[in-house]
Amino acid sequence: MTDEHYMKQALQQAHLALAEGEIPIGAVIVSNGHIIAKAHNLTERLHDVTAHSEILAITAASEYLGGKYLTDCTLYVTVEPCIMCAGALGWSQISRVVYGAPDEKRGFRAFAPKALHPRCEVLGGVLEQECAALMKNFFQKKR
Amino acid sequence: MTDEHYMKQALQQAHLALAEGEIPIGAVIVSNGHIIAKAHNLTERLHDVTAHSEILAITAASEYLGGKYLTDCTLYVTVEPCIMCAGALGWSQISRVVYGAPDEKRGFRAFAPKALHPRCEVLGGVLEQECAALMKNFFQKKR
Repeated sequence: MTDEHYMKQALQQAHLALAEGEIPIGAVIVSNGHIIAKAHNLTERLHDVTAHSEILAITAASEYLGGKYLTDCTLYVTVEPCIMCAGALGWSQISRVVYGAPDEKRGFRAFAPKALHPRCEVLGGVLEQECAALMKNFFQKKR
Repeated sequence: MTDEHYMKQALQQAHLALAEGEIPIGAVIVSNGHIIAKAHNLTERLHDVTAHSEILAITAASEYLGGKYLTDCTLYVTVEPCIMCAGALGWSQISRVVYGAPDEKRGFRAFAPKALHPRCEVLGGVLEQECAALMKNFFQKKR
């Protein structure tokens, strides 16, 4: 399966978030070709700033694997992870992070460039237009 | 009440973590002079890297307040927050962060210095010796 395939699954999660009035960001975690966790942003429903899709997906994947390290896993997320999520991904020792749209204002690359594990591979821009459009439309309607 | 008073409560949480074989870090969140959340590290029990005391305390405080912002709250934590936790504290817009021991290797000050809200006040070194000794003894025994 391609990165695009899994990013589409993350986008599906982002659409679920959108339908619930949440900021439309979704994530999936893949291990050995299988999706072991899916999550979308739930900060509004849970009124909890820590309920980003990546944090929820890390917790779910750890539960599934029965261990706290996500070595040999890939996270797909529709928007570049924030400082908090990149820090969490660093602790998890996840091997690969693939994101859709960059986030210049809140993304980890500008504010915590060493957050991920030194051996973690990062790829941005997968289905970037779709991922970015979801966010743009959401915030335009909010204004 | 003084910062030392609340840090002692965070230290009590750290001792609970120690007794359970967890990395001995504890946190409390104070609002209007009242402790509204207490938590200690649970990464081993939950096998979840996101279960740091600060993240658990933020979730508990938000639940208590019924809202996701912790403006006008102070977090007391025995060790300088990591990148992940500082990112979470930033999202929460917490007003003040007080920590005990610095963490040169994993602390946010070196790796994500802009993680907290720009108006957040930070104070380190409160009961530093006690907080640091707990960590040092824990890791010495692990070797």
